[in-house]
Amino acid sequence: MIALGSSTHPAWFATSGQHLGALLSDHLHCERKAAENAMSLVRRYPNQAAFVEALTRLAHEETSHLVQVAAIMNERGLVVRSDGPNRYARALLAQMRGNEPERRVDALLCAALIEARSHERLSLLARGFQQRGDQQLADFYAALGDAEERHAEIYVSLAKDAAPTAAVDDRLAELVEREAEILAALPHGPRIH
Amino acid sequence: MIALGSSTHPAWFATSGQHLGALLSDHLHCERKAAENAMSLVRRYPNQAAFVEALTRLAHEETSHLVQVAAIMNERGLVVRSDGPNRYARALLAQMRGNEPERRVDALLCAALIEARSHERLSLLARGFQQRGDQQLADFYAALGDAEERHAEIYVSLAKDAAPTAAVDDRLAELVEREAEILAALPHGPRIH
Repeated sequence: MIALGSSTHPAWFATSGQHLGALLSDHLHCERKAAENAMSLVRRYPNQAAFVEALTRLAHEETSHLVQVAAIMNERGLVVRSDGPNRYARALLAQMRGNEPERRVDALLCAALIEARSHERLSLLARGFQQRGDQQLADFYAALGDAEERHAEIYVSLAKDAAPTAAVDDRLAELVEREAEILAALPHGPRIH
Repeated sequence: MIALGSSTHPAWFATSGQHLGALLSDHLHCERKAAENAMSLVRRYPNQAAFVEALTRLAHEETSHLVQVAAIMNERGLVVRSDGPNRYARALLAQMRGNEPERRVDALLCAALIEARSHERLSLLARGFQQRGDQQLADFYAALGDAEERHAEIYVSLAKDAAPTAAVDDRLAELVEREAEILAALPHGPRIH
């Protein structure tokens, strides 16, 4: 399990959870982008079978979450909003080094960190909705939070297939710090990241 | 069911089916791009619930095909190749009109035509592999061919949610002609399109 460099502010759910339409919209787009990112890694690095198989399974799981968020929003009469620019992901991906295999390692570790942060946030949503008595969303986010944690581990493990373990661990430690700094510099809001 | 403007040359399987690695690679990338395209439509047109739900389900199904192709390639020791530029899709998408709702209608109808052509080609693969005694690929392509036909119908039906039926039917008839011309101008090869 990745130890993040910071914990989300305790007041995050109290404000975010009140803007259900915005929050679920953002979450829907997160799942879409997670699936798209897994597939873009298949496009970029197609020629290792185990890598491709792991990422196609991951993309399939992300689209299953996407279907579930869309269905819940539809059921609750919530309209999916347009997706704005994601300053968090953009800042994180700007950390990527340019040469191979560093580029690939960084792409995988950034994906791992986004999943790890999703795990933290979705777990907060699960707890928050539980306390608010919204059992459907509590159960949904508990299940999804666990999946995101698993995805983070898959991404780290794929990075370790591409470079020595010690180098990956060192780079992960650096990126964990950067991720916490990036998040701290952004305003709170009804967003997963 | 969409009636295509041309039939694939009878010799297509005889040559394509001999280049299994290239053919399955191309098919894998087709499934990836089909899922990516469905998700890009969610990004572009997020705010109609039924539209979003249909496209997220479609993306999920495409990723299930993606997982299956990757697994078959892995099992057979076939390496996924890099995806080259797709002149077919590029030429088809160049037909798209710029204003809304025409742009959306055209995006959906181009997707429908790509699926309809996939249906034709995958059905040829099913028959060809059956004759060659490769039951795994024969069954796989028979099942996938049926799914592509269903997807084509979903895209046409979504286009008809966005514009009057008669206008969509007229535009589809035009694009059916263009698609056949585009395909006729391209060399044969171990590609789905």
